Amino acid sequence: SVNPDLASERQMASFSVEKLTAWLDGGAEHTRMRRAVVEAIERDPVFSRENQYFQSQNERYEAAVRKAVHLQEKMHEMGWTENGPEFKYIYRAVSGDIAFLLHRIFMRSISVLGSDKQIAKWMPLATQYQLIGSYAQTELGHGTYLQGLETTAVFDITTQEFILNTPKISAMKWWPGDMGRSATHTVVFAQLYVHGKCYGVHPFIVQIRSLQDHSLCPGITAGDIGPKMNFEHIDNGYLMLQNVRVPRENMLNKFCEVQPDGTYVRWGSQKINYFTMTTVRISLISDEVVIPLMKACTIAIRYSAVRRQSKLKPGEQEAKILDYQTQQEKLLPQLAAAYAFHLTNNYLQELFKKGYSEIQKNNFDRLPELHALSSGFKATITQYCTAAVEICLRACGGHGYSLLSGLPSLYTKILASCIYEGENTILLLQTARFLIKCFMAASAGQPVPPSVTYLAAAKPGKCPAKNKLDFLSPDIYTEAYQHTAFRLISSTAAKLQDLIQSGVKKHDAWNQCTVQLVQAAKAHCHYITVKNFAETVEKLETKAGIQKIMKHLCDLFALHGIFSNTGVFLHDGYISGAQMDMVTALYLDLLAVIRKDAVPLVDAFDFTDKNLNSALGSYDGQVYQRLYEWAQKSPTNKQMSPAYERYLKPLLHNTLSKL
Amino acid sequence: SVNPDLASERQMASFSVEKLTAWLDGGAEHTRMRRAVVEAIERDPVFSRENQYFQSQNERYEAAVRKAVHLQEKMHEMGWTENGPEFKYIYRAVSGDIAFLLHRIFMRSISVLGSDKQIAKWMPLATQYQLIGSYAQTELGHGTYLQGLETTAVFDITTQEFILNTPKISAMKWWPGDMGRSATHTVVFAQLYVHGKCYGVHPFIVQIRSLQDHSLCPGITAGDIGPKMNFEHIDNGYLMLQNVRVPRENMLNKFCEVQPDGTYVRWGSQKINYFTMTTVRISLISDEVVIPLMKACTIAIRYSAVRRQSKLKPGEQEAKILDYQTQQEKLLPQLAAAYAFHLTNNYLQELFKKGYSEIQKNNFDRLPELHALSSGFKATITQYCTAAVEICLRACGGHGYSLLSGLPSLYTKILASCIYEGENTILLLQTARFLIKCFMAASAGQPVPPSVTYLAAAKPGKCPAKNKLDFLSPDIYTEAYQHTAFRLISSTAAKLQDLIQSGVKKHDAWNQCTVQLVQAAKAHCHYITVKNFAETVEKLETKAGIQKIMKHLCDLFALHGIFSNTGVFLHDGYISGAQMDMVTALYLDLLAVIRKDAVPLVDAFDFTDKNLNSALGSYDGQVYQRLYEWAQKSPTNKQMSPAYERYLKPLLHNTLSKL
Repeated sequence: SVNPDLASERQMASFSVEKLTAWLDGGAEHTRMRRAVVEAIERDPVFSRENQYFQSQNERYEAAVRKAVHLQEKMHEMGWTENGPEFKYIYRAVSGDIAFLLHRIFMRSISVLGSDKQIAKWMPLATQYQLIGSYAQTELGHGTYLQGLETTAVFDITTQEFILNTPKISAMKWWPGDMGRSATHTVVFAQLYVHGKCYGVHPFIVQIRSLQDHSLCPGITAGDIGPKMNFEHIDNGYLMLQNVRVPRENMLNKFCEVQPDGTYVRWGSQKINYFTMTTVRISLISDEVVIPLMKACTIAIRYSAVRRQSKLKPGEQEAKILDYQTQQEKLLPQLAAAYAFHLTNNYLQELFKKGYSEIQKNNFDRLPELHALSSGFKATITQYCTAAVEICLRACGGHGYSLLSGLPSLYTKILASCIYEGENTILLLQTARFLIKCFMAASAGQPVPPSVTYLAAAKPGKCPAKNKLDFLSPDIYTEAYQHTAFRLISSTAAKLQDLIQSGVKKHDAWNQCTVQLVQAAKAHCHYITVKNFAETVEKLETKAGIQKIMKHLCDLFALHGIFSNTGVFLHDGYISGAQMDMVTALYLDLLAVIRKDAVPLVDAFDFTDKNLNSALGSYDGQVYQRLYEWAQKSPTNKQMSPAYERYLKPLLHNTLSKL
Repeated sequence: SVNPDLASERQMASFSVEKLTAWLDGGAEHTRMRRAVVEAIERDPVFSRENQYFQSQNERYEAAVRKAVHLQEKMHEMGWTENGPEFKYIYRAVSGDIAFLLHRIFMRSISVLGSDKQIAKWMPLATQYQLIGSYAQTELGHGTYLQGLETTAVFDITTQEFILNTPKISAMKWWPGDMGRSATHTVVFAQLYVHGKCYGVHPFIVQIRSLQDHSLCPGITAGDIGPKMNFEHIDNGYLMLQNVRVPRENMLNKFCEVQPDGTYVRWGSQKINYFTMTTVRISLISDEVVIPLMKACTIAIRYSAVRRQSKLKPGEQEAKILDYQTQQEKLLPQLAAAYAFHLTNNYLQELFKKGYSEIQKNNFDRLPELHALSSGFKATITQYCTAAVEICLRACGGHGYSLLSGLPSLYTKILASCIYEGENTILLLQTARFLIKCFMAASAGQPVPPSVTYLAAAKPGKCPAKNKLDFLSPDIYTEAYQHTAFRLISSTAAKLQDLIQSGVKKHDAWNQCTVQLVQAAKAHCHYITVKNFAETVEKLETKAGIQKIMKHLCDLFALHGIFSNTGVFLHDGYISGAQMDMVTALYLDLLAVIRKDAVPLVDAFDFTDKNLNSALGSYDGQVYQRLYEWAQKSPTNKQMSPAYERYLKPLLHNTLSKL
């Protein structure tokens, strides 16, 4: 039975939830396919995540391996393929809680960096899991700066082998998933040396464990790096190499080769490869960032609709916490952000699809822009969504702090996305470098890529809004964002030039501007997100109430961004203090409007209870019942504590006589 | 051997680290005492936290009980007492990682709320741990709103007993520490009913487990609430009561009593009790909030001084990440905040000491102010420091994400401080209510408490700074903070009055202002923090370079606050855009200045390696060595994984023939 406090929320919906779901999925046929996949997965007990919050790191790893192996059978049984349309729904249905994700990267490395011969040798084995691969790039001492990797691969002309070594502790490979306990093979990135000359970092296939008994191969030291904030199911590992020899054929050689006599040859363009790496940052946005935020919003908003605490009106029943303005101000902007970034993701997917077809025609013109966008959006979206999940967690008070709410694991997992696949600050500085270049080019009258054409024309001036409701115009707020991005980019470019002209060395000048460069890059991405949201809403069909509610969310996202960053809009007087008061008033008004549709808006994300795996967020809203039932399953309740016999009994045993 | 990259940092110190430590401790004699306590604790293997990051919830609980029991013996052996000056150092030395903290609250409840007779009966037993107490207030359905508690205690005149019940699932007690597995007794807060009339919430001593065999008493259902984000060592519990009878004497009756005939009598003033509850919020600031932030800064800053990544200058060695402006901008403001809040804590301790002596003279005049300050500072300091610890964690990249860094557990623990002892938003609104009242009184020419006298005199106008260096004047920035707090309080008061005058009901008007009221309360606390920091620095001795470096930190804290909240200062033009550019430039300059002393400034916090328990933060800076050594101890490396035999072997066993 559905909690009446939740049922009543659903009756108020101003739009068709089913239609919104279909729109989010990209069409009703996708919704059907997704639901079919989810049903098949959830019906199968092997994929259950029921006891996840009670399991140790060892148990989580065991389960993840079991699931990964079983998934292969399942996919065969269902006729699903790795490259089929179902795959993303499978990943969503298992919530990423499976092993061998790095095995996939191992395979991709071979298919992208390997020759046809190498592909023919390794891919059939990998595809059938007759070996288990990993991807060993990061070292204890080196993450972002690949050129600094210290692992070496020296070509031995006499044996036609490469000799691999991690010559010091900081060179030890550290973090690769699936490597700590599972992998038999890995792709090791190492500095290639031939005849004493260094040719830079290259990839080598290295066997690390015996295929007979899984023991470590000679010269290999490897293991698990121990507990992390999340990812208990993954055996992130370490790897030391001591004079490990691999045949010459094990260097992945699609783009270059060491010939038998030691001649180093390089050919072809690596630009497509470079593009592939860039797309990884885009591919994680949906699965690892936006979907987790959607889950967090679902949990926190459903909970806020059934949790009653304190009174809004004296004499009345205790109020739903969702009716407090402060609670709305915590949660509803995060809900709007989930929709905003879902649409940004669509925009980026589209852009990269176009980019890929251009690149296949050997046109690499848009590569710098795509790289800048993928870096900037990876950083801004992971950062925003991580903060948003944390807000959702905190907004649920004590119950949010329980692992059973599902929120802590969402938070500790999404947090990692700010670090992996490029640390966010580094990525934002790459975007900033692109923006500064474009700004200089635009100032000199040269053409610039489409996403930055606004840098060509400074539009000084003031925001034209006369009254509060003017700020509901997407033109008004989009231009405010554009103006701000322009100002931050141009003023930082000016500072940089001033410093250099005053004699500061280029690299020092750059370092002295980096705090402001990061701000500028963020402002650029924020602007594009708002612009894309507004443009998407404009194109929506007006039926079923969907355009109307999306317009509200778009307004809220945009105004919340201004309300939370008033300084950058006020700084040069583009928005005045009086106008900012209008923004604030309108923003607070909008909270009350969207609050009415808050539950339907999270229902539209269409998560099953099993997928949410939250005692607070279930569709029926029976929060207290579920917390109690789940807590009883905890191993802490499974046995009389040995602590009693050992420590407490001696203290307590003669108290009775004194009471 | 100390990592040379760290050793060189220490040689640069512009001040005496030992003198700064003594100043932080409140005198060299305190430093000596603290070190003696820490040494005694750390020499004792029972208190070791060496394997903490590898332990399960069950193992953490066992260890915490063992430590708590052992601590009693230790204290006896060392001649330390619970109320002695050593106690705070003991708590710091064990990092709060012991059981029976709620037993202490149980004792305090009895001593504060119990009659002399009750104290005489229960306290000797509790002091000697011949029973183990807990404190059962929060329910599944009720946290912040105490009046809403649903547990009942009905007086049965025929047997002279109270009959306790948790009549529905939301009434179940939930969260009390030490209750899930350890406690034999607890103080239950329940609605008192006599002759069918409700007299509100009262405390009752209830036995929940047998003193003979620790089994649950009749009518009692209790257990552990399961896994949480942290606090694995604490058995937070649930408790259901079904017609549990306790004698009339078990209602704590210092202030009121149910007489044998059912007459309810109330006497005396509960104001001292109220004051005691208020002080709890202050007492947690140092141990649970500021010290953890100091630890996080120590870890992140030492790591940043030995981690080298990428190049600042082409052709040079890779740079220490602490030399990047973006890294300085992440960490140094958090370091300044740790010092700022340490001083705020001193200020509050002093204030409450004075307040207590006034109250003992039956002068309750300052109670509302103390309550407002304790609420506001509990909320702002926990919030600020939680965000700060998260920044430290993220600033360490992947290695910060490993539990072995110590940062994840600092973060997941400090996060709880935003929720317990009063949820922060609720607390800020209590502070705001006080501020609005004082503003109205001040506007009407009535006297107001010392901390809010600035509300009496609006000083409209502009910031008088003419050039960048003017912003190094504490008068300039303190007045800017004061102006901002005044503006936010007065404008919200005006909005509130406008709404009410336009016919909105009082409680609705209040709700519609709460987002802004929270901002106003934060601004007030921020202002007092800056003011107190500046005043403290002014009074410092100039010798040993301490005043100079503290002045830098104070400036940084103040300017960082403006730089991160530019909007509130720009809004009415108090600070102009041009002045804000000066603030930004000066702020960025200061980062480079403080960077030179960053390591000595964290060394002064004087944490031992055992106390930090971090592979990244040790005094010698041997980060990679330690990560590797610790990882090898992980249980994930202790055995061949069963997953190999079960799932992998069948896949891999016939691969050999194909390679």
